Amino acid sequence: MFRVGIVGASGYTGGELLRILSTHPDVEVTIATSREFSGKPISYVHVNLRKHYTNLKFSNVSLEEILSKSDIVFMNTPPGVSHKLTPKLLENGLKVIDLSPDFRLKNLEEFKLWYGFEHESPDLVSKAVYGLPELHREEIRNADLVACPGCNATSTILALIPLVEEDIIDTLKIVVDVKVGSSEAGRKPNLGSHHPERANVMRPYNVEGHRHVVEVEQELSLISRKNVKVVFVPHAVGAIRGSLATCYSFPIEDSIDDNMLRKIYAKRYGKEPFIRIMGEGLYKYPDPSNVLGSNYADVKAVVQERSKSIVSMCAIDNLMKGSAGQAVQCMNIVLGFDEKRGLDFPPLKPI
Amino acid sequence: MFRVGIVGASGYTGGELLRILSTHPDVEVTIATSREFSGKPISYVHVNLRKHYTNLKFSNVSLEEILSKSDIVFMNTPPGVSHKLTPKLLENGLKVIDLSPDFRLKNLEEFKLWYGFEHESPDLVSKAVYGLPELHREEIRNADLVACPGCNATSTILALIPLVEEDIIDTLKIVVDVKVGSSEAGRKPNLGSHHPERANVMRPYNVEGHRHVVEVEQELSLISRKNVKVVFVPHAVGAIRGSLATCYSFPIEDSIDDNMLRKIYAKRYGKEPFIRIMGEGLYKYPDPSNVLGSNYADVKAVVQERSKSIVSMCAIDNLMKGSAGQAVQCMNIVLGFDEKRGLDFPPLKPI
Amino acid sequence: MFRVGIVGASGYTGGELLRILSTHPDVEVTIATSREFSGKPISYVHVNLRKHYTNLKFSNVSLEEILSKSDIVFMNTPPGVSHKLTPKLLENGLKVIDLSPDFRLKNLEEFKLWYGFEHESPDLVSKAVYGLPELHREEIRNADLVACPGCNATSTILALIPLVEEDIIDTLKIVVDVKVGSSEAGRKPNLGSHHPERANVMRPYNVEGHRHVVEVEQELSLISRKNVKVVFVPHAVGAIRGSLATCYSFPIEDSIDDNMLRKIYAKRYGKEPFIRIMGEGLYKYPDPSNVLGSNYADVKAVVQERSKSIVSMCAIDNLMKGSAGQAVQCMNIVLGFDEKRGLDFPPLKPI
Amino acid sequence: MFRVGIVGASGYTGGELLRILSTHPDVEVTIATSREFSGKPISYVHVNLRKHYTNLKFSNVSLEEILSKSDIVFMNTPPGVSHKLTPKLLENGLKVIDLSPDFRLKNLEEFKLWYGFEHESPDLVSKAVYGLPELHREEIRNADLVACPGCNATSTILALIPLVEEDIIDTLKIVVDVKVGSSEAGRKPNLGSHHPERANVMRPYNVEGHRHVVEVEQELSLISRKNVKVVFVPHAVGAIRGSLATCYSFPIEDSIDDNMLRKIYAKRYGKEPFIRIMGEGLYKYPDPSNVLGSNYADVKAVVQERSKSIVSMCAIDNLMKGSAGQAVQCMNIVLGFDEKRGLDFPPLKPI
Repeated sequence: MFRVGIVGASGYTGGELLRILSTHPDVEVTIATSREFSGKPISYVHVNLRKHYTNLKFSNVSLEEILSKSDIVFMNTPPGVSHKLTPKLLENGLKVIDLSPDFRLKNLEEFKLWYGFEHESPDLVSKAVYGLPELHREEIRNADLVACPGCNATSTILALIPLVEEDIIDTLKIVVDVKVGSSEAGRKPNLGSHHPERANVMRPYNVEGHRHVVEVEQELSLISRKNVKVVFVPHAVGAIRGSLATCYSFPIEDSIDDNMLRKIYAKRYGKEPFIRIMGEGLYKYPDPSNVLGSNYADVKAVVQERSKSIVSMCAIDNLMKGSAGQAVQCMNIVLGFDEKRGLDFPPLKPI
Repeated sequence: MFRVGIVGASGYTGGELLRILSTHPDVEVTIATSREFSGKPISYVHVNLRKHYTNLKFSNVSLEEILSKSDIVFMNTPPGVSHKLTPKLLENGLKVIDLSPDFRLKNLEEFKLWYGFEHESPDLVSKAVYGLPELHREEIRNADLVACPGCNATSTILALIPLVEEDIIDTLKIVVDVKVGSSEAGRKPNLGSHHPERANVMRPYNVEGHRHVVEVEQELSLISRKNVKVVFVPHAVGAIRGSLATCYSFPIEDSIDDNMLRKIYAKRYGKEPFIRIMGEGLYKYPDPSNVLGSNYADVKAVVQERSKSIVSMCAIDNLMKGSAGQAVQCMNIVLGFDEKRGLDFPPLKPI
Repeated sequence: MFRVGIVGASGYTGGELLRILSTHPDVEVTIATSREFSGKPISYVHVNLRKHYTNLKFSNVSLEEILSKSDIVFMNTPPGVSHKLTPKLLENGLKVIDLSPDFRLKNLEEFKLWYGFEHESPDLVSKAVYGLPELHREEIRNADLVACPGCNATSTILALIPLVEEDIIDTLKIVVDVKVGSSEAGRKPNLGSHHPERANVMRPYNVEGHRHVVEVEQELSLISRKNVKVVFVPHAVGAIRGSLATCYSFPIEDSIDDNMLRKIYAKRYGKEPFIRIMGEGLYKYPDPSNVLGSNYADVKAVVQERSKSIVSMCAIDNLMKGSAGQAVQCMNIVLGFDEKRGLDFPPLKPI
Repeated sequence: MFRVGIVGASGYTGGELLRILSTHPDVEVTIATSREFSGKPISYVHVNLRKHYTNLKFSNVSLEEILSKSDIVFMNTPPGVSHKLTPKLLENGLKVIDLSPDFRLKNLEEFKLWYGFEHESPDLVSKAVYGLPELHREEIRNADLVACPGCNATSTILALIPLVEEDIIDTLKIVVDVKVGSSEAGRKPNLGSHHPERANVMRPYNVEGHRHVVEVEQELSLISRKNVKVVFVPHAVGAIRGSLATCYSFPIEDSIDDNMLRKIYAKRYGKEPFIRIMGEGLYKYPDPSNVLGSNYADVKAVVQERSKSIVSMCAIDNLMKGSAGQAVQCMNIVLGFDEKRGLDFPPLKPI
């Protein structure tokens, strides 16, 4: 049994990590930190977890305790925290799965620009592996520090990988329209997430620029032979969970058709344990409501003949494949487990 | 008092027409048809209208009755019905506000392609005026037959008019991502609108092509000096009412900035009674939840500097500015009333 | 034109007062206070009201300004504020419609017990009229100070009046189960109203005792010849607006049947402008979704034969008949207008 | 490995059985019937189950196939079907877990009255065990035929067992107000469950009498020394899953207090694997949103001092502890497994 620490365990992602790991056969959560709820039982906050973790209480962050109790640590902290604490964990031989943005970007300038802090561990930035197994599985296997992607970056990149790898679209004219559920903004109440303000919205936000686009362009540029430019606008819609990326692109050659896209996606994703390509059935296109509670990402790409464009879509649960689930998937790879260990359950539906 | 007939009055748009007209000072609804509920009081179906229309019952469609009881008729029928009945109404001197698609398109071929019927009144197609007052106000004033736009076409066209008129975007690379509420699909139950299936979705549909795009391209081409090509994908999201069009386009010249867009939209829409340009406040971008129950359309356009693109948005209530409200606005113009008559009430919020 | 002041105008009830009064033909809002948004235009906060109140800005509370600008004032303040300010308004000849609880209760002890303050205007408590027109219409007509009921008290009392007045139920065994929407808790964000926490709940609260029960028992005791004891539990459910009171009682005599109940309710409420007794139609029982946006209260009572009990129900929009709408109804009575002035519009549906 | 057949596998309960059993270590689903979708893969209908059951297709109901392929069968059929098919399964040595109402009631007359059919297997009615493990665990262990409770009956009975067993309430004056999500009405579209009609309701239904009350009174009478009479009204509210029973009763003796209730419930339910008594924490009362996706039932009882009443509550997921989950719990008992086998995972939250 590996011993797992969770730094930042009282929010939604922390709760989701605890939920998943409660049934993982090979690890045990030994420490879960929360400044606000230190000393309280886990189920005090995560009421759904009553009858689970009956012997665990939230504790304050203490480096000594983390070092003595954990083999691997999930950093589930606000931007600007992990880049200070993580180096100490690594120095002491622990592995770190970072769910914060602190090691996602390779260009140090961008941390200041988008997250407002000066990075204090530039050397680790280059060592950290971007935690999208579908792109970096082998590097993750040997990594000490995995920087898990943002939820909207995950859905966007997964929708676009085959198109960019196959070099069939104009990479300077990619439009990504994202829809997200309210849990993305976390547990802390604010006006925009207040129920009467949020329940029935179709609300664009960060229209002038959203920070997840930096990761998207970084990763797509890596796999492309060309510069990549993405127009990206997220929208809050009436759901608690889910991130849907609808990606619009223009094919370089007119001859592309649905059949070719089907083959390209099948070839690229056919063996991926958590990617499902939508096909025949009552619903034909990706929709997060088909993956909620699970680590699956549903994808599909089609040609819109009239407008000579390609529409590629990816639907995930933002708290699962978009954060906690993907983090556990990365942990499995780092620790040498089967990638599906503890994650091999289907989505809940209807919900 | 003008006498108003509503053909197809038991659905959502019919109910909304009845709701609005119940407080309109200059018209009276004298006939409301419904095959299914013929003989039942209005409030039997529209439970919200109890204590209103207490002397009116649904009746079967009878040409004689319509002719004898109405001066102006709202055709609120499925595709393929109005093009047969409307000619008879016009011949007898009535005015017709058509909420169905039967006279929206100018190219007769498209009716067959998208709506599956052979048009029987091609001469009226050319006489019909597309009922978007912001584009065709003067023609509507003199029209006998007004063909009201589809809801998603309304939000899309309103978001794009100033950009196309000012000729500042590449009209061959316009991407429109639309989000809509469940009322758009009407009152008839079906699996996709069944509550457990629909409540929390982010579900793309008609990805291969949606028929509203034909009107959009038709109208934008009219005001442009160039060919217009629109990539268009609607998405069902978790709300009952609302249509939000997020439109992505690429400026012809790099120098365009937010300030210029603000001026262009202010100039174009400043005197429009039902267009509101979003500005300062707790919410800065269009969101249908700010216009529900009213005939307003909220619009805004901004430059996304990083991607050198323009994002223009328009939010409407699909049952109001997207259908019944806009139809009454057209009726007001046709009958010579103040355009805001009976429509000059604010949206309901929170809702 | 009477001049209206609104003290506390930036919350949901304030916004609803502004919405209604924007189309009221006989009054004008001349002052709207908000500490937080002082100096901002009305539409800065109430984004739905853009294009309305274009000349009005929020101002700080200033006794002088209120006195100089208003004939009648809506007090829309947290518990414990109005009992200090209202006396000064009355002394200067203004009328006050109080939406806060400060003058609802007749027993001074209860203010301390349920609202935590020592009442400073005990003399006004006895002069204040409880603002439920269906019970106190004549007294309201001559009142200077009207104390409007709480929303859940309104739905509960309206469901029970005919049963208590006719003396046909055991008044010591009344059970009231209330369901309410999230807007009831106001605009201020908190964990319980945070969208991810609130969207799909069926959450009992204040099970140990809810303060609205005091008004309920007070008013029902007034019209009963007996002591009245009510078991009362509110539940947060998944909606923004609405209060439904399901009231269970036991008939004194077994012979009571649906027909008798129908007659009793018709006799009591037949002439009430805002009470609608549910009858035949697609929906047979009260449900707030049929009254949203309006001042109507839908009621019905039936006998459940198997259990020998009476189920009486009342559905209202908590922000309308439950607060702002009822306050305007009271204002109309106080000012001598037709009771329906400015309120005679139907509910919005579907929504 | 036991072989499991599911008769009626394409609806919500069928999908939930398939979801749970996909991770159950000791059984295998070998047959899943659906008239409508015969020949289609499981994931054609249950899109969430893509990548699971890849070798199973829906089949038509064939007695021979069921007998040859199954050791135990879940009957998941509309009222009036199981009482004809189940006898043949039992005769051939299969075990049956019946999720339909066909064997729930002991009084044969009630089937005709509430479900409209004449029972053809009266002898089996007396042999069938009511599938509520908290009441009939030992009988279930030896049963060939288990008749699983209705969802609202489950939440109601669990809320009341300790009060009735301890004989501390007036059993002739029990009021039960139930709130339920839309999935309870199944997958078939109808007006009442159409999203625009259903999303924000607080809608009482079957106010004149709901058939689940028969089971409730039957089971509570069995454990009481007295006649039991229950006033019971269900309400549709804005959620997909969940059943909350709020039960109001009057204590026989005034001395009862919260502390005594706590002890009574702790004693009765302390060792139950799926009953959780709500205590300290961010939420203190049962709410289905804390149990969704799991087999847990959250309960609590408190005294409302002012009204001298007891409020006892139980929250379940109607598709889990209210049907599929409880059915699997019963299967585990029947087959001699640990009761929690395949069900020992926590609820999903937020959702």
